[in-house]
Amino acid sequence: MTAFVKNTWYVAAMAEECCDTPISRMILGERVVLFRLPDGRGAALEDRCCHRLAPLSMGDIEPDGIRCRYHGMKFAPSGRCIEIPGQDEIGPQMGVRHYPLVERHGLLWIWMGEPERADDSLIVDCHWHTDPDWPTTQGYIHYQARFQLIADNLLDFSHLTYVHRTTLGNSGFPDARPQIEPFERGIRLTREMRDIEPSPLHRMAGRFEGRVDFWNRQVWWLPSVFENWAGSVAAGGEGPAHEREGGFHLRHFSLLTPETEDTTHYFWIQPCRFPVPDPDLIHQVKRGIDTAFEEDRLIIEAQQRVMKESPLARPMGIQADKALNMVRFMNERWLRREAAERKAASDSPLPTGERA
Amino acid sequence: MTAFVKNTWYVAAMAEECCDTPISRMILGERVVLFRLPDGRGAALEDRCCHRLAPLSMGDIEPDGIRCRYHGMKFAPSGRCIEIPGQDEIGPQMGVRHYPLVERHGLLWIWMGEPERADDSLIVDCHWHTDPDWPTTQGYIHYQARFQLIADNLLDFSHLTYVHRTTLGNSGFPDARPQIEPFERGIRLTREMRDIEPSPLHRMAGRFEGRVDFWNRQVWWLPSVFENWAGSVAAGGEGPAHEREGGFHLRHFSLLTPETEDTTHYFWIQPCRFPVPDPDLIHQVKRGIDTAFEEDRLIIEAQQRVMKESPLARPMGIQADKALNMVRFMNERWLRREAAERKAASDSPLPTGERA
Amino acid sequence: MTAFVKNTWYVAAMAEECCDTPISRMILGERVVLFRLPDGRGAALEDRCCHRLAPLSMGDIEPDGIRCRYHGMKFAPSGRCIEIPGQDEIGPQMGVRHYPLVERHGLLWIWMGEPERADDSLIVDCHWHTDPDWPTTQGYIHYQARFQLIADNLLDFSHLTYVHRTTLGNSGFPDARPQIEPFERGIRLTREMRDIEPSPLHRMAGRFEGRVDFWNRQVWWLPSVFENWAGSVAAGGEGPAHEREGGFHLRHFSLLTPETEDTTHYFWIQPCRFPVPDPDLIHQVKRGIDTAFEEDRLIIEAQQRVMKESPLARPMGIQADKALNMVRFMNERWLRREAAERKAASDSPLPTGERA
Repeated sequence: MTAFVKNTWYVAAMAEECCDTPISRMILGERVVLFRLPDGRGAALEDRCCHRLAPLSMGDIEPDGIRCRYHGMKFAPSGRCIEIPGQDEIGPQMGVRHYPLVERHGLLWIWMGEPERADDSLIVDCHWHTDPDWPTTQGYIHYQARFQLIADNLLDFSHLTYVHRTTLGNSGFPDARPQIEPFERGIRLTREMRDIEPSPLHRMAGRFEGRVDFWNRQVWWLPSVFENWAGSVAAGGEGPAHEREGGFHLRHFSLLTPETEDTTHYFWIQPCRFPVPDPDLIHQVKRGIDTAFEEDRLIIEAQQRVMKESPLARPMGIQADKALNMVRFMNERWLRREAAERKAASDSPLPTGERA
Repeated sequence: MTAFVKNTWYVAAMAEECCDTPISRMILGERVVLFRLPDGRGAALEDRCCHRLAPLSMGDIEPDGIRCRYHGMKFAPSGRCIEIPGQDEIGPQMGVRHYPLVERHGLLWIWMGEPERADDSLIVDCHWHTDPDWPTTQGYIHYQARFQLIADNLLDFSHLTYVHRTTLGNSGFPDARPQIEPFERGIRLTREMRDIEPSPLHRMAGRFEGRVDFWNRQVWWLPSVFENWAGSVAAGGEGPAHEREGGFHLRHFSLLTPETEDTTHYFWIQPCRFPVPDPDLIHQVKRGIDTAFEEDRLIIEAQQRVMKESPLARPMGIQADKALNMVRFMNERWLRREAAERKAASDSPLPTGERA
Repeated sequence: MTAFVKNTWYVAAMAEECCDTPISRMILGERVVLFRLPDGRGAALEDRCCHRLAPLSMGDIEPDGIRCRYHGMKFAPSGRCIEIPGQDEIGPQMGVRHYPLVERHGLLWIWMGEPERADDSLIVDCHWHTDPDWPTTQGYIHYQARFQLIADNLLDFSHLTYVHRTTLGNSGFPDARPQIEPFERGIRLTREMRDIEPSPLHRMAGRFEGRVDFWNRQVWWLPSVFENWAGSVAAGGEGPAHEREGGFHLRHFSLLTPETEDTTHYFWIQPCRFPVPDPDLIHQVKRGIDTAFEEDRLIIEAQQRVMKESPLARPMGIQADKALNMVRFMNERWLRREAAERKAASDSPLPTGERA
């Protein structure tokens, strides 16, 4: 029914969210409980006791697992039931689904697909977020919109001029079409704007007094991670703008995790390098991003409401849609591939451990 | 799917509602943006950018049209797209639906049907509302009920005795059956009550100290405009009550615009003529109407909830239902006629400009 | 569509709820108006005027019936229409459905099935609630959960240890399996625990300073009344604990009335006998029960939400589920029997008074 890419890593939570208390979070339409054992290991289980379906997230963390608050059954991080109060034997079918979970660069990444395919080398590199040389900030937005509408937004920066006129925008974006280059795991977008007025955010972060040269080096990692290395440097120097001294750099990541078909967990991190260090700048960046992303949320949620109200209406393309159409196409191809793999597995004449 | 009469004028807004900022309003299940150009002309478009379906009502009004807040596309009042930022050519398919809109007597009237049939001589005459000799008041109620239930209410004044005991009612209404006379565009109801206690509202507005002769001259204009010329004059004079000197007259209009199948925009205006002029009287009338209409809303919305909860229950008729049954029948006949016209048009062997 | 046992008595209201003003209450998915005539007789009718389906609960009580607030039709407690304002004749079809209603032991019991089968000797005996020798308390909880989930909870006291650790629980419940004995109208559960720490509630109510012997004598009356005679007495005496002097007794009844398939009216009464009389004790009991039942509500409503989100998930049984599985089985058997009776009646070649 739902249609999500499954065999990939999604951000389930900021690492610091997950402490003493279990968290219940719906991810790809499945209710997951995230918790951390006293020894610090994170774990992710189906948030539904196998006995009478009470949510495990209302339970208590013990050294070896999580105990259901209702009738006291206990489950190990592997999902196996390890205690039934008042009963000596525990049948082998007693257990809940377990999801691979990896903590990296301040984020908890979850694998909602087949566990044996969970390869943590596929996690997108966000190391700047835990690099002490990069002041960083982060945020979370709950979106009443399907993730693809947010992806569309991030993949067409012409909206910066209209949506973010007071924060991220300047008038040049609609005319500065990026170079777009597909690769195996997504697309790369490159954009240069020379001798422009900086956006309010870049002006503040870089302490620029005049015009700047601006760059974007973006990657869309399928299905739903957006990496945006952007920056500005005083206009007119030698060589590529992003290699010059004195520039303001940001290494932004927007990490989209579908909650349901129509709602999304939007995590973002934004490590920065400022030409003139000042501990307050990162807080100003945070305020700027919060403001800008709220502007996006308003228009994207409105767009989602319109689409729900008028299911027969079809968008009409313009030239600026090239990148978002490529990503939509690549994601749909991935979905079809996963569907075909599932069908092949279920048609297979030999039973496998997979099909429990 | 929905079933609304389309080729007619509905009130979209009070004229004064529509100023500097676009208004988004659902009418007959379609989301419409209403706006006024700087030169004062009103316009009504589909509230959905043809590009990626963002609501135009979040956009900005410019001298020649409305610009989408998302990616900056601009649309003329005709619905034609006249600018795509960063793109030179605009395909002829780029545009949104346009609705005829007429401002008259302080109201904005919209035509949701075929634009070429929009004949403004069909707009119901409400000129008293902008006549300086008639102090006037107005209101808007959002109804969680389908428009027909409100029509039923307005077409059976026997409810005044029970619902409006403290405002509009007196005990005579159940027994004072109106004369009912159908005509091409609806029905006319005439009601006379001689030598009765005035309702609290009439007593206040007319400064009556004793009994009155009361009249109603009502018209139900299909599908959903109710005109109510009512009044009282001291009991016992010569000739028809409504022609005598010293009477209190009201020229009420209830203007119902279906929002969805189950919700309604209820606009009302009430120009009055008072036998003893007093600038405060019209405010007292307003308070009385607000109170009475709130009494109606409570019972009608409750009725709607009951009907939703019990879809199989069928109303049983009584004698007082005659007028409302006539209007229901005439509206259904109109709906069938429009459905037949649409079918004939789509069966026609020759393409027409209609079918875009 | 809905599946409720119909030919049984349900609690519709606490007797004291039903005074001067009609009450609208949905019971088994049917909207019912409960009212009390000036002479004290209670009555229950379909809450839907047969004329235009306005709710009768908005109407006014008169000496001989209830008058609809909308157009003034009046209905006797039998459901027959006895007045139509402005109309002399009243057709025999004019009326609304009537439900048998009995007031007993401070509760109003309603029969939602075939009226001629309403036998008030089937009402569960709750006489302690109006016995002056038993201080008593009561409560009402609106549950966003289907009644069967609440039944499951009441039928497996192993949850007391985990859900009610600070109120009703002690660590012994998971190991103290009750004796279970089915009978024609339900099941009986008997549980004894000797020489245990009393629960916080029993310790307070019985003023116990040391360990106690504890008993339960429970009856589940199909489909949805739970009787729980429980108590404690100082540990170590002669004979059955519940027969000894100096014990704390409670005669609790949980009376579940399905509102819809997914929501429930939960009435409870709890007459008590305290070994050391003190007028404040019953209030402390009330506070304890309120707290404990709120703990139940949180977990059961969460369970319901999980079940709604994951309709394909199936509970897995454990040994403690024996009693609740028996009740589920017996209730399903009753449902099938009623369905078969309805089918037989509708297949019968001769019309009966039943089928109006």
